[in-house]
Amino acid sequence: MKVAVTVMLKNGVLDPQGEAVRSALLGLGFFDVKGVRQGKVIELDLADGTDLNEVDEMCKQLLVNSVIESYTVESI
Amino acid sequence: MKVAVTVMLKNGVLDPQGEAVRSALLGLGFFDVKGVRQGKVIELDLADGTDLNEVDEMCKQLLVNSVIESYTVESI
Repeated sequence: MKVAVTVMLKNGVLDPQGEAVRSALLGLGFFDVKGVRQGKVIELDLADGTDLNEVDEMCKQLLVNSVIESYTVESI
Repeated sequence: MKVAVTVMLKNGVLDPQGEAVRSALLGLGFFDVKGVRQGKVIELDLADGTDLNEVDEMCKQLLVNSVIESYTVESI
């Protein structure tokens, strides 16, 4: 089974990567871009039958800094 | 309107970040993890009515290295 963990900075946390992308897009003439946030997606290939609670545990222990980041888990 | 662009390394392209995460998860005792791929997600806040073709153009010009990366676009 495969799951995708999407990790984004929480609202209000400064996102310099996203700002850099926004600035670059404006420089290329894409004036419709009002804001950009950049996060990461981690695709996990897990043994069949793995409990999704285990994925939550991975997020808490390693994948996510819960002070500044939020995450979602979905099966793919 | 908001769209999310998910950028992943193509299959077969070495993913050292993903390998590092896999190794760290194994070190923490998560033995159900068979593989990890890490990519990025870029959330774009666009003016209403922006054509999705414009997002494709952004990907081609800046967001995606099409030699080694593939991407998907979805409205959120």
